Amino acid sequence: MSGLIEEGSYLLISSKKSDIYLVKVTQNGEFSTHEGKISFKDVIGKPFGTIAKTHLGAEYILFEPTISDFLKFTKRKTQVLYPKDLGFIILKLNIRSGKKMIECGTGSGSATSAFAFSLFPDGKLYSYEVRHEFTSLAKENIKRIGLENIVEFKNKDISEGFDETNVDALFLDVKFPEKYITHAYNALKPSGNMCIFVPTANQVTDVLKELQNYPFFLTEVIEIMLRNYKTIPERFRPDDTMIAHTGYLIFTRKVEK
Amino acid sequence: MSGLIEEGSYLLISSKKSDIYLVKVTQNGEFSTHEGKISFKDVIGKPFGTIAKTHLGAEYILFEPTISDFLKFTKRKTQVLYPKDLGFIILKLNIRSGKKMIECGTGSGSATSAFAFSLFPDGKLYSYEVRHEFTSLAKENIKRIGLENIVEFKNKDISEGFDETNVDALFLDVKFPEKYITHAYNALKPSGNMCIFVPTANQVTDVLKELQNYPFFLTEVIEIMLRNYKTIPERFRPDDTMIAHTGYLIFTRKVEK
Amino acid sequence: MSGLIEEGSYLLISSKKSDIYLVKVTQNGEFSTHEGKISFKDVIGKPFGTIAKTHLGAEYILFEPTISDFLKFTKRKTQVLYPKDLGFIILKLNIRSGKKMIECGTGSGSATSAFAFSLFPDGKLYSYEVRHEFTSLAKENIKRIGLENIVEFKNKDISEGFDETNVDALFLDVKFPEKYITHAYNALKPSGNMCIFVPTANQVTDVLKELQNYPFFLTEVIEIMLRNYKTIPERFRPDDTMIAHTGYLIFTRKVEK
Amino acid sequence: MSGLIEEGSYLLISSKKSDIYLVKVTQNGEFSTHEGKISFKDVIGKPFGTIAKTHLGAEYILFEPTISDFLKFTKRKTQVLYPKDLGFIILKLNIRSGKKMIECGTGSGSATSAFAFSLFPDGKLYSYEVRHEFTSLAKENIKRIGLENIVEFKNKDISEGFDETNVDALFLDVKFPEKYITHAYNALKPSGNMCIFVPTANQVTDVLKELQNYPFFLTEVIEIMLRNYKTIPERFRPDDTMIAHTGYLIFTRKVEK
Repeated sequence: MSGLIEEGSYLLISSKKSDIYLVKVTQNGEFSTHEGKISFKDVIGKPFGTIAKTHLGAEYILFEPTISDFLKFTKRKTQVLYPKDLGFIILKLNIRSGKKMIECGTGSGSATSAFAFSLFPDGKLYSYEVRHEFTSLAKENIKRIGLENIVEFKNKDISEGFDETNVDALFLDVKFPEKYITHAYNALKPSGNMCIFVPTANQVTDVLKELQNYPFFLTEVIEIMLRNYKTIPERFRPDDTMIAHTGYLIFTRKVEK
Repeated sequence: MSGLIEEGSYLLISSKKSDIYLVKVTQNGEFSTHEGKISFKDVIGKPFGTIAKTHLGAEYILFEPTISDFLKFTKRKTQVLYPKDLGFIILKLNIRSGKKMIECGTGSGSATSAFAFSLFPDGKLYSYEVRHEFTSLAKENIKRIGLENIVEFKNKDISEGFDETNVDALFLDVKFPEKYITHAYNALKPSGNMCIFVPTANQVTDVLKELQNYPFFLTEVIEIMLRNYKTIPERFRPDDTMIAHTGYLIFTRKVEK
Repeated sequence: MSGLIEEGSYLLISSKKSDIYLVKVTQNGEFSTHEGKISFKDVIGKPFGTIAKTHLGAEYILFEPTISDFLKFTKRKTQVLYPKDLGFIILKLNIRSGKKMIECGTGSGSATSAFAFSLFPDGKLYSYEVRHEFTSLAKENIKRIGLENIVEFKNKDISEGFDETNVDALFLDVKFPEKYITHAYNALKPSGNMCIFVPTANQVTDVLKELQNYPFFLTEVIEIMLRNYKTIPERFRPDDTMIAHTGYLIFTRKVEK
Repeated sequence: MSGLIEEGSYLLISSKKSDIYLVKVTQNGEFSTHEGKISFKDVIGKPFGTIAKTHLGAEYILFEPTISDFLKFTKRKTQVLYPKDLGFIILKLNIRSGKKMIECGTGSGSATSAFAFSLFPDGKLYSYEVRHEFTSLAKENIKRIGLENIVEFKNKDISEGFDETNVDALFLDVKFPEKYITHAYNALKPSGNMCIFVPTANQVTDVLKELQNYPFFLTEVIEIMLRNYKTIPERFRPDDTMIAHTGYLIFTRKVEK
């Protein structure tokens, strides 16, 4: 990345009140607010982090979006995963450049984006999804972050199993994950790491029961809570409300039979 | 990685009761437990994930350690950071292969390890620390995970500033971070991301006050809590106790003056 | 309480969808919903817990409100306290029939209501508030629960101190509690218990600093979080969002000089 | 209470380091520490809240114990309930002087103590327990707080139902609460409030399923977390560890058939 705003760049634009927007820079486009407009031709060639003024004089900051920003602005048709869970999953699944990974289902592509980010530049993600419209949406979301080469989207049912074997890591975010433990076991390399994400306690118990039938070991169930604080130094305190629950994270590791 | 245990490999060895150990495989070494011994020469050449038996017949599983395992077994002389915080920081700071990053201080090298992991193979971490013994310890911890080429350790005081400019991200874990905001600002590229980690609320307010004097924006303060659950499917419930606090995470972004 | 609905009774009316309303029964009044009306004259004389039908045939349940329901429906002009905090405060301050207690400020009277409830029938609460409109509002809220004899409202400034001495417990919920520690000390009996409620961390540190100048001891700072769960047995999981923060609770005890 | 220490009084004795002890004052007894002894005859007649010196000159503070202190020092053979849960339960169950309540099982008597405290002076608690040794232990714990007149201990099995009808509130803390929903329904007055305390998610789902067969309504499931903070004003932060889980609280209300 050159550090300069180009045609095709994405911008995280912040108002002085910290209202934020994710927009794509086009040659003749513009960013419109109730405080006036910013023409993209005026900002192309400037560094990210610059302050731009609307034609009415209001100031907006043009940040380079992070992967967390893209996750926040994932175009979605489903519940998406958050950085609090995804960052932890990445470190637990040991995902980085050079690794091969399977995820199912693709959904809107939020987890896909985070995994692709961590697999860059030489890893591979095989992302399964049975519903065409989600695969299309996820492809769009991945293209925004320029990581389409990392991901192979597979628009197919996994009831017959996965195409790959010997993958380093596997992430399951499906309604009945306990049905696919066999397939997951077969796809993983020995000592490979799996994470299963489920919203309900009932699903956790169903998965834990099923895992007992397989040589998986060191199973953990974890919940991560994130609390935002207000940033006024004289009145430091948590925000009034928070997300109370996204899901339970089940981690386990394949033992070679 | 070949997937086969070699001389020099690290093993995460788990007993049937889930007691875990991190050990390094040596040609003539052995792993001793109260249930007997496993000679490393008997396991070299086998795949990770294999079950090995001690000379008394007890079974142990030989997992390939993940970055999270290495973080758990960081040799430490200081409070270390945990995957719950580090995974989130990585996604918020947008760290991946190709990026340049500064951290200070190195400490025992737990954050160093996680950042190096995420910067692999083509990123760079400049890790500052004033105390020699910590730099040495951190180097040892980084060597275990084979990422010494990613990190340049700098055993020096930062009161005069950082040597680098235009870095993508910066992580501050020092006692009085408010003293180094100028230096951090100068080292970061425009739109660069900073995270400051502090244990106390007083430090947060000191940092928030100081940040008001600089063109940093979109400041957030966040706290992440992790809860482990028991994994008996018939009695699913949280563990009795948990870590209540590691620290507050302050995130902010550089605006170009 | 007779267990029968009377003129003047309060009802917690619940729809089949668990929408709830707190209403007062009047001789000629009625409860109107988009599903029809219930005339109060038809329910007077029936037991609480009965199902009533609107003139359109929709069913509503007529519960006897609890103190928690009244707290939830406190008419408010201020931030109010919740049962999660109030129940804990009551047990820590050791409040029950026979005890004398001071609170300041009265605010909308939510804490007042809970304290009066726990002091019933032979305790006394002296409730200070400098703003007339809040005292009036709180009086109204206390009358609803029939506990006006327990509370003596004092519409006055506490900068000159409290009128009472030797009280068993004292609750401070004011903007600058550190200013009134002397007065609180003087009002409390030896070994008396104080709770100070503040929303920000800065206020906590201000209070903790000031407490060091007085013979108060066994100081504790506590935060209570409450999480609601969804009640569908097949999909047991926490609600999506929760209250993240109400305030910090500081408890301390008077040592006799 | 006179406010003066008497023979038979309980004292919460705190060292200068905040180590605390709960002891009973006897005519010829003494309190022994590694810093010397305090003879009870020297403290009888003094007010609670006084500082006493050991014969070696060390200072200890003699506080009047609160109900929370007694709960903390409950002699126990079972897991006990904590003020964070008990205070909330009391406000949700609407327990105060004049009310009738059932609890089962008695266990070590921690919940019994808190309920008796809130029912004082004119309420009644019927406390069921099938194991003799627990009833004995609980009686001992209740006597310490002088509330034995509030509680009627019933050393019997509840599989045949409760002896009482028309009680205001009912608290179930048993292994298979779903077995006793009929009996609970029959014992409660219409609009009466029930709380069921269970440690595991599986138990919650079992109870929620069973409740669907009865005219109970406005069911809620709640979890309360308490976090202690360090009290050094210059380093305000949460404690390192906390209790992560005591149990899930299920609340529901009886609808008249």
